[in-house]
Amino acid sequence: KHIVVIAGDGIGQEVTTVGKQVLDRIAEKFGHEFTYDEALIGHAAIEATGNPLPEETITKSKQSDAILFGAVGHPKYDNDPSAKVRPEQGLLGIRKALGLYANLRPIKLFDELLQASSIKPEFLQGADILFFRELTGDVYFGEKGRKDGGDTAYDLMIYSRYEVERIAVKAFDAAMTRRKKLCSVDKANVLESSRLWREVVQEVAKRYPEVEVEHQFIDAAAMLLIKDPRRFDVVVTGNLFGDILTDEASQIAGSMGMLASASIGDTTGLYEPIHGSAHDITGKGVANPLASVLSAALMLEISFGMKAEAEAVVDAVDQVLKAGFRTRDIADSNTPADLILGTEAMG
Amino acid sequence: KHIVVIAGDGIGQEVTTVGKQVLDRIAEKFGHEFTYDEALIGHAAIEATGNPLPEETITKSKQSDAILFGAVGHPKYDNDPSAKVRPEQGLLGIRKALGLYANLRPIKLFDELLQASSIKPEFLQGADILFFRELTGDVYFGEKGRKDGGDTAYDLMIYSRYEVERIAVKAFDAAMTRRKKLCSVDKANVLESSRLWREVVQEVAKRYPEVEVEHQFIDAAAMLLIKDPRRFDVVVTGNLFGDILTDEASQIAGSMGMLASASIGDTTGLYEPIHGSAHDITGKGVANPLASVLSAALMLEISFGMKAEAEAVVDAVDQVLKAGFRTRDIADSNTPADLILGTEAMG
Ligand SMILES: CC(C)[C@H](C(=O)O)[C@@H](O)C(=O)O
Ligand SMILES: CC(C)[C@H](C(=O)O)[C@@H](O)C(=O)O
Repeated sequence: KHIVVIAGDGIGQEVTTVGKQVLDRIAEKFGHEFTYDEALIGHAAIEATGNPLPEETITKSKQSDAILFGAVGHPKYDNDPSAKVRPEQGLLGIRKALGLYANLRPIKLFDELLQASSIKPEFLQGADILFFRELTGDVYFGEKGRKDGGDTAYDLMIYSRYEVERIAVKAFDAAMTRRKKLCSVDKANVLESSRLWREVVQEVAKRYPEVEVEHQFIDAAAMLLIKDPRRFDVVVTGNLFGDILTDEASQIAGSMGMLASASIGDTTGLYEPIHGSAHDITGKGVANPLASVLSAALMLEISFGMKAEAEAVVDAVDQVLKAGFRTRDIADSNTPADLILGTEAMG
Repeated sequence: KHIVVIAGDGIGQEVTTVGKQVLDRIAEKFGHEFTYDEALIGHAAIEATGNPLPEETITKSKQSDAILFGAVGHPKYDNDPSAKVRPEQGLLGIRKALGLYANLRPIKLFDELLQASSIKPEFLQGADILFFRELTGDVYFGEKGRKDGGDTAYDLMIYSRYEVERIAVKAFDAAMTRRKKLCSVDKANVLESSRLWREVVQEVAKRYPEVEVEHQFIDAAAMLLIKDPRRFDVVVTGNLFGDILTDEASQIAGSMGMLASASIGDTTGLYEPIHGSAHDITGKGVANPLASVLSAALMLEISFGMKAEAEAVVDAVDQVLKAGFRTRDIADSNTPADLILGTEAMG
């Protein structure tokens, strides 16, 4: 299998290094051969080439069997709203170029981290949610611009039937292999694009009579996710609402540093932590690499069909946590100092 | 003072009845005279007149000194995405017609409810956030429609400089009277309308050198709100992001049933609970009326400048909670059954 590693910005480099090491260890243990190539994206690519998504990165990605992705972003651009070239264009561009329309974000709490969250353990125990976030449409990709000499700015929130249908089908298929519950999130009481979303999900639902379906408005969903996380099984939603809900849901898993994601479509899959580039801790060697490790596990399972290998990785993470090891973000006041590890040691 | 009561749908009727009783008691105690009128909105107005926002409701509202508002919404429309006339059009319409561009949502935890939340008390103690949600712009009011024979649907997310500026000014003014911290929430790494938002907030910030300003992306904000609610003082954000964050923040206050809001602009103010019409509990007499009571307190303070009167109401709520009384939504497993009250008794 040929893997392209796109580390990107900030802690992306540090955490994907560990993700790759884990893949190597799996290859060794299970007798596979993984070859690697590297490619640039984001701020790193802008610095090197002026372009957040060099053509070469797309070509390499398309020729690979899977992509291990780090993170993009840089504070420089965040504080300069008028910057024309931005790191995030690289990430959005590659999602679009590879047709990665379904972003799977499993939210599963490792027992050992029950105390790491700000949410009470009795509300978390047993929570297990699989998000399907639509990834190549919505207000992210609609026409955007300025008018009135720059004094008015707009972004078009837009969905077409086929876009909703294909992600809904993936979500219902997944629900059938799980607890057979699906929650679709929209804002159909206000938005026309949400009304289309709801219409299409209702239609697809008819093909899955065994799946219990509910529709929630995004505001209510954001509340229920904390109030009662266990009520959710599969959640399917648009690009923007999915961005918000999955970051919020990271608190169910104890830390953003634990959450992996798989972006899939019709061709090569891309595997990336949910967390961002985290420049505040970049270069300090303290970033939690487990989201990258768990992203590698998703790659093994989804892109390579290597179920046992994926389980071995998840088991290893479980063991390490059971042994008491923590990175700073998942440590609490009871963690002995010598069990708090840096990125490399955790790897 | 002349008050228009717009009870609306579902539990709106039950809770505003209590809100109004509290206003009457204040009038009696402090020697004011409050006169009332009623007006229709939402599903109730559709049933009576075919129109979710009858002209008469706007006229009465404009002639009043303040509006006590209940809730709008009906499950009938939620499950029928193709309905052309919808209760929510009444609410959005009145916000627009009265120019209520600033929605203030104070999130303050009553000490007695520290245990009612799914969030650990040690993360909540002392949390005190004042949200400024922009209320008459954004994707709520941009052009919306269908094309491709109905197979594509869109909503324009759009902001103009003056809209951002006037809400930012209100938020900064409030920050100056509080802990002098302001967090502006947007998605400037992806959205052009957010980049304008950030530009304008940065400009307004220059006029308030004493206020410590931070900018957060909506996904990060949704996470931080649960992870560390105490880091926030004043939060200012757009209509859609504000809708989501404030519902989520209701978990900080223990229940949505505790949260009041004030919608203000250049003329008459409108006071409403954050919660919705809650048809699942309508007519059962169990709804928590405290959000309506606290909305009445905001009316006294903001529209009528009656600070002592407002404090008397908040104090009364505090006393009632201290005495152990709870409605179902804020009761926990330790609440004795005889202290769990219905809507009327709580009033
Ligand atoms: C970096 C940003 C553009 C991106 C997004 O909003 O999609 C990130 O938040 C994510 O969730 O992958
Ligand atoms: C009912 C709905 C249209 C409304 C909104 O989204 O503004 C509600 O959720 C609110 O927050 O007041």
